[in-house]
Amino acid sequence: MIFRTISDLQAQVVAWKAEGATIGLTPTMGALHDGHLSLVKRACEQCDRVIVSIFVNPTQFNNAADLETYPRSENRDVALLDRVDAVFVPSITEMYPEGFVSNVRVGGLSERLEGAHRPGHFDGMATVVMKLFNISKADIAFFGEKDWQQLQIVRRMVKDFNHSIRIEGCVTLREADGLAMSSRNRRLGENARRRAPALYSAMQKVADAVRSGAERDVALDVGIQILRDSGFESIDYLDVCEATTLTPAEKSGASLRVLAAAWLDGVRLIDNLVV
Amino acid sequence: MIFRTISDLQAQVVAWKAEGATIGLTPTMGALHDGHLSLVKRACEQCDRVIVSIFVNPTQFNNAADLETYPRSENRDVALLDRVDAVFVPSITEMYPEGFVSNVRVGGLSERLEGAHRPGHFDGMATVVMKLFNISKADIAFFGEKDWQQLQIVRRMVKDFNHSIRIEGCVTLREADGLAMSSRNRRLGENARRRAPALYSAMQKVADAVRSGAERDVALDVGIQILRDSGFESIDYLDVCEATTLTPAEKSGASLRVLAAAWLDGVRLIDNLVV
Repeated sequence: MIFRTISDLQAQVVAWKAEGATIGLTPTMGALHDGHLSLVKRACEQCDRVIVSIFVNPTQFNNAADLETYPRSENRDVALLDRVDAVFVPSITEMYPEGFVSNVRVGGLSERLEGAHRPGHFDGMATVVMKLFNISKADIAFFGEKDWQQLQIVRRMVKDFNHSIRIEGCVTLREADGLAMSSRNRRLGENARRRAPALYSAMQKVADAVRSGAERDVALDVGIQILRDSGFESIDYLDVCEATTLTPAEKSGASLRVLAAAWLDGVRLIDNLVV
Repeated sequence: MIFRTISDLQAQVVAWKAEGATIGLTPTMGALHDGHLSLVKRACEQCDRVIVSIFVNPTQFNNAADLETYPRSENRDVALLDRVDAVFVPSITEMYPEGFVSNVRVGGLSERLEGAHRPGHFDGMATVVMKLFNISKADIAFFGEKDWQQLQIVRRMVKDFNHSIRIEGCVTLREADGLAMSSRNRRLGENARRRAPALYSAMQKVADAVRSGAERDVALDVGIQILRDSGFESIDYLDVCEATTLTPAEKSGASLRVLAAAWLDGVRLIDNLVV
């Protein structure tokens, strides 16, 4: 069932809560691919009722062209979600009515990596996610590890605000050639699509080098070279970080993650990998 | 019963929710007076279970001396609350453990009046209030109209984040001579205490003048003169504003409020009044 207003969804949630049902939420921006569907599947396995939100949140786009060209396919998306209990598709004014002035900020974590390249992105994301948590009253929310920094920020926000929702991170789904599934992949030309898996290879080589004891800069240079050789136009970042705080990795003993964002064929791709 | 940890209070809340009890929350910074107790009484009348929090929140003090000299009287406060179900008295590290980095901001509203004179004050307030709402899972929270701007910010925050809590504003209690009850009144010397009700008189004269059709500046000058004549050392603001958005009043037809903050005997007093 499709819900377009907050009040309609809230009425449904109240009814489900009265039955004692547990509620799962999968927030999305639509243009669904198998990665999203794997989150929805997890939600259906773990919760009595599942809500999937589809909302291309304007406040988390720092770039007007990116917002405008972000792929949208509502009818197809809704058809793919025929087994969930609620698809929440609010309008922009439903989420941000006249007079809306608030936002959440998760300091520190929001400023690094993606945050440094997309000012305001994570404030917009955190704010809309907080709204969705409260509207859905979900017991569990499901996020992809593909957006690793987002996942860490959401976890931190929930902890800092003592929100009762539980956050489940779900592994990144990849195409056969290793490219992480992403709605933005649709924008890649044929030639670029063939070269895109180099982002994954580059991260793998960096992780291998770190595990072999290479110096951080040496390890990163290996990855940078691969991206350049594969025709990536520019690299926003390629780094090895402590997996939770996303501070630059200092010692190899900590739980580490390679994170990358780079441009190919005018499309910005991001990905990450455990070391 | 006194709760000092979030997890202990949460366990109690879960038990109350399982019984179907409604929960009321009255957030305070302690140093309780009859104004606070009137909020607690309202909470007890309207809710099955009542939680009163006592937490002198450091993040909402922009002035270290004010934080240090803020009156504290935990034993006396707890004794006054013998009829509530839970008194929540967390430590600073319980509320802000290592790694805490988040905050809520209610833009626009937080920048005017108090916000202009106490940078960061309302961000700190909104953040701790959001935490208390989530920890308590209260159905209704009770706030005094004495802190009128705070009340508007909390209402706006709840609306913007689609929080399900209901906010009840409670009328300001006054001493026999008109001085609004406030924990900071305890700091006034005897002579200043006698002159302090001039703040209320000044606001009344401003409201009278506005109602009589006086120009805004003329009306405010009447109030300013009263404060000066009564020995107030300085006036942070005295203004007539639209009651909800707190933008400067432009037309007399709107719902208006007089708001004031002024210093007497080294103590900062605030108050407000409907026009």
